Amino acid sequence: MPTLRIALAQVNSTVGDISGNAAAVRRWSRQAADAGAHLVAFPEMMLTGYPIEDLVFRNSFVETSRRALTTLAADLAADGLGELAVVVGYVDADGPPAISADAVPGTGRRDASALLHRGAVVATYYKHHLPNYGVFDEDRYFEAGDTLTVVRLGGVDVALTVCEDIWQAGGPFTAARRAGVGLVVNINASPYELNKDDVRLALVQRRAVEAGAAVAFVNMVGGQDELVFDGDSMIVSAGGELLARTGQFSEELLVHDLELPEADTTPNASADPVEPVEEMRIARFDAGLVADLSGEPRAGGVAERIEDEAEIWSALVLGLRDYVDKNRFRSVVLGLSGGIDSAVVAAIAVDALGPERVTGVSLPSGYSSGHSRDDAADLAKRTGLDYRTEPIQPMVDTFLANMSLSGLAVENLQARVRGVILMALSNQEGHLVLTTGNKSELAVGYSTLYGDSVGGFNPLKDVPKTMVWQLARWRNTQGDPPIPENSITKAPSAELRPDQKDSDSLPDYEILDPIIKGYVDHDLGRDELIAAGNDPALVDRTLRMIDLAEYKRRQSAPGTKISGKAFGRDRRLPITNLFREGL
Amino acid sequence: MPTLRIALAQVNSTVGDISGNAAAVRRWSRQAADAGAHLVAFPEMMLTGYPIEDLVFRNSFVETSRRALTTLAADLAADGLGELAVVVGYVDADGPPAISADAVPGTGRRDASALLHRGAVVATYYKHHLPNYGVFDEDRYFEAGDTLTVVRLGGVDVALTVCEDIWQAGGPFTAARRAGVGLVVNINASPYELNKDDVRLALVQRRAVEAGAAVAFVNMVGGQDELVFDGDSMIVSAGGELLARTGQFSEELLVHDLELPEADTTPNASADPVEPVEEMRIARFDAGLVADLSGEPRAGGVAERIEDEAEIWSALVLGLRDYVDKNRFRSVVLGLSGGIDSAVVAAIAVDALGPERVTGVSLPSGYSSGHSRDDAADLAKRTGLDYRTEPIQPMVDTFLANMSLSGLAVENLQARVRGVILMALSNQEGHLVLTTGNKSELAVGYSTLYGDSVGGFNPLKDVPKTMVWQLARWRNTQGDPPIPENSITKAPSAELRPDQKDSDSLPDYEILDPIIKGYVDHDLGRDELIAAGNDPALVDRTLRMIDLAEYKRRQSAPGTKISGKAFGRDRRLPITNLFREGL
Repeated sequence: MPTLRIALAQVNSTVGDISGNAAAVRRWSRQAADAGAHLVAFPEMMLTGYPIEDLVFRNSFVETSRRALTTLAADLAADGLGELAVVVGYVDADGPPAISADAVPGTGRRDASALLHRGAVVATYYKHHLPNYGVFDEDRYFEAGDTLTVVRLGGVDVALTVCEDIWQAGGPFTAARRAGVGLVVNINASPYELNKDDVRLALVQRRAVEAGAAVAFVNMVGGQDELVFDGDSMIVSAGGELLARTGQFSEELLVHDLELPEADTTPNASADPVEPVEEMRIARFDAGLVADLSGEPRAGGVAERIEDEAEIWSALVLGLRDYVDKNRFRSVVLGLSGGIDSAVVAAIAVDALGPERVTGVSLPSGYSSGHSRDDAADLAKRTGLDYRTEPIQPMVDTFLANMSLSGLAVENLQARVRGVILMALSNQEGHLVLTTGNKSELAVGYSTLYGDSVGGFNPLKDVPKTMVWQLARWRNTQGDPPIPENSITKAPSAELRPDQKDSDSLPDYEILDPIIKGYVDHDLGRDELIAAGNDPALVDRTLRMIDLAEYKRRQSAPGTKISGKAFGRDRRLPITNLFREGL
Repeated sequence: MPTLRIALAQVNSTVGDISGNAAAVRRWSRQAADAGAHLVAFPEMMLTGYPIEDLVFRNSFVETSRRALTTLAADLAADGLGELAVVVGYVDADGPPAISADAVPGTGRRDASALLHRGAVVATYYKHHLPNYGVFDEDRYFEAGDTLTVVRLGGVDVALTVCEDIWQAGGPFTAARRAGVGLVVNINASPYELNKDDVRLALVQRRAVEAGAAVAFVNMVGGQDELVFDGDSMIVSAGGELLARTGQFSEELLVHDLELPEADTTPNASADPVEPVEEMRIARFDAGLVADLSGEPRAGGVAERIEDEAEIWSALVLGLRDYVDKNRFRSVVLGLSGGIDSAVVAAIAVDALGPERVTGVSLPSGYSSGHSRDDAADLAKRTGLDYRTEPIQPMVDTFLANMSLSGLAVENLQARVRGVILMALSNQEGHLVLTTGNKSELAVGYSTLYGDSVGGFNPLKDVPKTMVWQLARWRNTQGDPPIPENSITKAPSAELRPDQKDSDSLPDYEILDPIIKGYVDHDLGRDELIAAGNDPALVDRTLRMIDLAEYKRRQSAPGTKISGKAFGRDRRLPITNLFREGL
């Protein structure tokens, strides 16, 4: 049985930075070659970044991707890396990309994986299963491939597949069994969700057994708008055994020696498929690669899994860092109220960017308590961020002197004056403004539009309030605690009127969050929520608040998705909607 | 040949108002019966409104729709309308709707058309072609039907189809020819775009000829968030002749006598299909309806087409009115700068809601010219809207006294103080705030986030600046001119610094708008735009501005789509995107 040394390049590509991404492929391919690898696999859409969304409709973009691929093949050879087989994702088109976006259906665009060798594009595969649920719109963008691409490499038949191909039964993995391949390379841009790593492992194991072939699964790492890709690349044997696995949330090159069946003697070449064959054609290529092993045997090792809080914290840190860096912001600014949300966002920002790139602003009003200011100052001291105070009362008083306002209008006014100050600091000093509303607040609309909701990015957008506390407590156990204990333990308050508490307007978050999770994340209706043990009156009140806050969410800042269903592209509801549960 | 009296109910349904929509079906069915109709057809998703988006994943919603359908059938019979065949759109599910949104692929949901008769649901059809481009995400929501439903009515075989079925070749209309039907009823929720009515007519004519059957095409009317449905219902003969057609943008019942081939003697029952048959099964039902004609013969007539400006103006008026009314706002407020954008929005609002529901606020600063205030006051006088003045200088001065701001930060501060004032009036008095940035401004980011962009709805969101002027001139020819001539003729200015003009920062709109249209609406790249005759330096500058403004658009207010590609769900671009045309 031949042995192939496989390298999985779990790297961070950037949407639209095609030349930068190609340079990264050359850099990591050099490392893979230095490690003696025969094959290195990069993530889905490595050259273009993922998701490119409607950029796919621009011919100039697709043509740049296609040209970059052939240039890359030549550059790798010029780099002396021609003998290395490089699998890389990019966007392709059927023929010259002359098809306009108006041509519906059939965009002519392909989510493609190419194998580069000796300066040439040896073979190309087009993704077969296109996800069109959750955050994915791939039926909008791509046409599905109908041919499994098999390349002979060092005596082994290797099939190319892309991401969703592994999530749905039938198609490529069934065809891979029919083709009798020894290895399936599955390149991914699979976004993070809490506990998705557990699902992925079981899935890769299942498909390996179905295909009767080892599977090399490589995933992207990095943040892209509301998504964060966590890596978690792995190699599984044909028998379903986990052989090697990377960690999450950082770039990594996994190198592993894999003994694989010689192509001509593959035992299951004519085996019956384990499930009904969805007919895909099989196209075969030969890369003419000779797989000599050099140096010591390599085993990739299996990285340990990390606990939930660490996983989420890392996702939030990476999501923020990449949004800031990829969009070329030097620094961020946020309001520090002394409360838990802004304290946690500040701690995430400092972990992501370092304290010198984070400015925290205390924005006290006449209703701000003493402890609010003390807790904000304490946080600044603990984290080392740049701290200043901008009192809002003079501006609030001027508005009140010039307009007749009362009640809610006065409360919102204070939040909006804070928003104006933060945006003025952003304009004057170039910071990105961070907003800090958690998922529970966003759900029920407990925020002021254009007030505390101002900002270009929201790290807590998909984090329920109860999880914000959980994260704060966890983070304080990791080295020096950045978050003041008082910010964690005190009762939450917007401090927009005397002695205001969140609990004046909202159920306790321990009661609220499960209702939100049922309604938002799981689409449960009123009856199902009540059957699950929630109080009927609270269910009615909460659902009504959630329904009526849709217009605020539509104008909310982007933020990192960490759950099964985040606000944003993941949950698309009409604003105008008279459906009321239970009526 | 039997004659059927067909009624097309071009009505306005509301998303989620299932009981209200069912009541509308009963009301309009009564009218159809009074006119002696045998068959009345309502739009796609009449019972639920359209689009329901992710509400489709909630079992409680789907179950309410299904129950409402059977209740409606019984209610119609109880109303004495049982002999009338009623075709109505709703959302259905395969079996009890127990399928969770997590079950991917295959949502088990159906975009359905039912025929009600004598108190029962006689037959149901599931939409076959699902649009998944532009604003549509139907592959996300529905499973495609594979069976053409044919119902015998008064001796005529009638096929049921839904919306997109008529836009794509093959499938239901091919099956309709094979089934030898006399009439195809196509129920629609087809959103307005400029000149779409011309495309629709040609399409309906083509499908009628392909099917060898008359086509009754009924479309919804009304606004739903960013979409407006324009009606334009029609009846076309099997030979492709336009027999009857409604106007656009208002509710209407079109009643027309249609001579149709007797089912058993259909000549083309075994004819060869004109294009390759995409195999659909055919299911046949018999409603047992006897089609006696009563009273005078009825001909629906063909409504005259209206000019482009009238079409767009009507779309904007209806889109705004329905957003305000369906979301239960009593009134709107907007800032009046004396410029063309706010003047046109005020005129649209007054046409939509009447002057007593519109408040215009002059928000002068130290940089506001005398003519700005005069023009705003003149507009108020011409339209009769509620007018007031809120000077911003005291608040701006207080911010400047308390912070060190300069340049752009001072300009944006003024816009944000205006935003705070408008939102305070909204909170205090309950108005919906209208924002007035046109498509050209939104494209290049020529606006202040949380400043002039604040608001719950933007009537001009999809209207390029050159078209804003065109609409103003046209509207002033329709009765008393609401818009001051000076607002139309003066050079546009944001008036945020002394003697500022839009032309300081932007190319002339006559030059800018075609570049925007090419890049945004048609996905043209730099080279294509230059080949089309645009100046290379202006192209580079404009594309860069458009790329960098994506983050502002993501937080912008909804507004009515009138073009082939509107900002919003119609154009989905990443914020983080380093692709630069020409680099």
